[in-house]
Amino acid sequence: MSYNNFLYLLNDALKNNHIELALSSVETFRAVDIADVLTQLSVQQSQLLLTHLPERAYVFSYLPPVEQVKLAKAMPRNILAEIIGEMSSDKRADVFKCLDQDQQNALLPALAQAEREDIRQLSSYLEGTAGAIMSSEYATLKPNMMVKDAIKMLRFEAPDTETIYFAYVLDEARKILGVLSLKQLILAPEEQNINEFMETNVLTAYVDTDQDEVAKTISRYDLLALPIIDHQNMMVGIVTYDDAMDVASEEATEDFLKVGAVNASSKLSIKSAPILQLYQKRVFWLVFLVFGSLLSGIGIAHYEDVISQNLVLVFFLPLLVGSGGNAGSQSSTLMVRALATGDVQFKDWFHLLGRESLVALCLGGTMAIAVSLLGYFRGNEMVALVLALSMMGIVLMGCLIGMSLPFILNKAGLDPASASAPLVTSICDATGVLVYLFIASIILF
Amino acid sequence: MSYNNFLYLLNDALKNNHIELALSSVETFRAVDIADVLTQLSVQQSQLLLTHLPERAYVFSYLPPVEQVKLAKAMPRNILAEIIGEMSSDKRADVFKCLDQDQQNALLPALAQAEREDIRQLSSYLEGTAGAIMSSEYATLKPNMMVKDAIKMLRFEAPDTETIYFAYVLDEARKILGVLSLKQLILAPEEQNINEFMETNVLTAYVDTDQDEVAKTISRYDLLALPIIDHQNMMVGIVTYDDAMDVASEEATEDFLKVGAVNASSKLSIKSAPILQLYQKRVFWLVFLVFGSLLSGIGIAHYEDVISQNLVLVFFLPLLVGSGGNAGSQSSTLMVRALATGDVQFKDWFHLLGRESLVALCLGGTMAIAVSLLGYFRGNEMVALVLALSMMGIVLMGCLIGMSLPFILNKAGLDPASASAPLVTSICDATGVLVYLFIASIILF
Repeated sequence: MSYNNFLYLLNDALKNNHIELALSSVETFRAVDIADVLTQLSVQQSQLLLTHLPERAYVFSYLPPVEQVKLAKAMPRNILAEIIGEMSSDKRADVFKCLDQDQQNALLPALAQAEREDIRQLSSYLEGTAGAIMSSEYATLKPNMMVKDAIKMLRFEAPDTETIYFAYVLDEARKILGVLSLKQLILAPEEQNINEFMETNVLTAYVDTDQDEVAKTISRYDLLALPIIDHQNMMVGIVTYDDAMDVASEEATEDFLKVGAVNASSKLSIKSAPILQLYQKRVFWLVFLVFGSLLSGIGIAHYEDVISQNLVLVFFLPLLVGSGGNAGSQSSTLMVRALATGDVQFKDWFHLLGRESLVALCLGGTMAIAVSLLGYFRGNEMVALVLALSMMGIVLMGCLIGMSLPFILNKAGLDPASASAPLVTSICDATGVLVYLFIASIILF
Repeated sequence: MSYNNFLYLLNDALKNNHIELALSSVETFRAVDIADVLTQLSVQQSQLLLTHLPERAYVFSYLPPVEQVKLAKAMPRNILAEIIGEMSSDKRADVFKCLDQDQQNALLPALAQAEREDIRQLSSYLEGTAGAIMSSEYATLKPNMMVKDAIKMLRFEAPDTETIYFAYVLDEARKILGVLSLKQLILAPEEQNINEFMETNVLTAYVDTDQDEVAKTISRYDLLALPIIDHQNMMVGIVTYDDAMDVASEEATEDFLKVGAVNASSKLSIKSAPILQLYQKRVFWLVFLVFGSLLSGIGIAHYEDVISQNLVLVFFLPLLVGSGGNAGSQSSTLMVRALATGDVQFKDWFHLLGRESLVALCLGGTMAIAVSLLGYFRGNEMVALVLALSMMGIVLMGCLIGMSLPFILNKAGLDPASASAPLVTSICDATGVLVYLFIASIILF
């Protein structure tokens, strides 16, 4: 049965209120796949199916925010409160933040006291920080427990925790004394004191640490979860590896789009975002970059005499200027990614400047040979000389601009990824025009 | 103590053969951090420290391949064999693949029979497939065990497995019957039969599945590990979440660099790669793109008359042509990333073409208004008209080219990320020149 056929039958079953049939048709599906199915149904039917699903809170948390809000609006308040109550604390806060003020106000009184407090707490953290992605459901142990008691305690805590594979040993003030894995507990003798073998050198992050930093730490140390503390060193949550994977993917998307000069967050869906929103994300850079191009135009206007007497120069203009832009884009792309992955830091700038110059000379030399041959056949040996020298200069300039811009932005506290390919191209184009026509005016006149 | 001071003291200790002192200075360090320290030492001292580390195999596996090969060369064969024997199977195969033929031949006889077989098996899988990143150390259970026996068996297997948080229930032919988490086992009554509650609907991937697919599955379903099977459905390994994170990051880097027209793998370090290698990764696209620019030049040459009689047109050439390239880069970047994350598929092309046209008309309209004002003040109302119409046409063309190219490459079985910003810019530049000068020749003559 094809997916479309399946959707058709499911639709039919829901329309005719055959809930059992609908439920059994998605029985073997995983939560994230059911969430995909829900987005294909009308709000009415989606809500009908969701409320009857055994894992409804889990499925709901996999829906895209837009769908969550749609369903939340359509659902009776008490059912929504039930589902939100069943969700894990981090997903619950995420949904809550997406609702409008009215929906939030209507929902809060329907929730249990503890959930309400939890939502208030978790939604108070700034987007993009550890606090905004952490979960407050983690397993804790008391110091000096015996292994068998620790396992018993984890069993007891299991229903309310995201993971029991790691448990944090906290003192009375919720300061972290150590961390234990369930593996360690399973392998240790039942009567042993956990303090004897817990890991006391625990990696942590603050609630206001950038989520990207948290994801990097989890990835670097291959952690299942990273405990999050506040500035009084009290443990307040954990960020799990799956959230770290999502963050890493989001950050990669954002950097990727920035390099293409699109101001978008990873949540922008090119398939479903409103046209006007896509327009807004792109128009700023396009208009901004016009100024870069204007500089090129001014350069050309300045050398109008040179051009009018050597129209052959215009023929080579796109080639020379384009090569500088292309080489510059390559350099900036390499740098932006290397800065993002932590492969290079600001202190490496001078070292890299030297290496980049060498690479640029090799690249420029190759291109100069190619273009001077063209110049010789279409013009003469003087044109060939102008082209060769210009190409060397333009590629060198392009590479140095392309590699330096991300560093400069970084140093200025801006995102290096703002050194987009189009921005670098525009700057390199303008300098390229000046270099080319300056060299031409000297040699040909 | 600063990091440099620390390195200085460590260096000193090692030079004077004060192993105990050196070891105690890195006692609180994690494996990946010690690996970083090793790369800062000379091969001699790095080897000395490594061989005495308690977690030496683990530290060794975190070293970059280049460093591993250097150390492997310098180390006595029997010590190398010991360290490689202690490594996890996937890392061991990775190191082995990096060694040259002579080193491999020298190493094999020094390894235990089982390790030798394992290396042969794991290194036989193609780079980029699940087989190349999987580990052969996973926990297995037999069907119909009691919970307490299953836990006992996991305890016994623990030292030889990457994780005991998931265990696979296999039949005699190593076919997967089900999967159990340690959490389920811990929570179940001791006397229960595992078949009663194991998950029988198990997600798997084949050994020759693309590693990117495997990483996506792990991320989508929030798995700790994905079991890998051969084409006889026999279980042969697992890929764990941390390897999936690494793969996702590598793939993001590769796409990122491709969009910047750099043909590099994620393993290329801009800081330490040989200059010639960096040159090679970049020169192909730079030279290739010259042909795109040549098309622009030919377009200009074709309309030489138009230009020579209206030199003001040259002033606006970079602006118009650049805007088309910039808009095109934005479109292609959005598409490449959306295709990579699975947000859009080939079947969405026509739908997206319509949306993109609308966005392009809005963007083109905005830019046309801006540029025609400039044209009016620098030229006259006819120039303004030429500029407005050209801008609309060029931005529309740019967007449609930029969004279509990744789809076309994808359909042709190529990587959509090859639709790099510089490539799209070059193509858009050439069409931009033609559109602009064609419109100018019609209106102004």
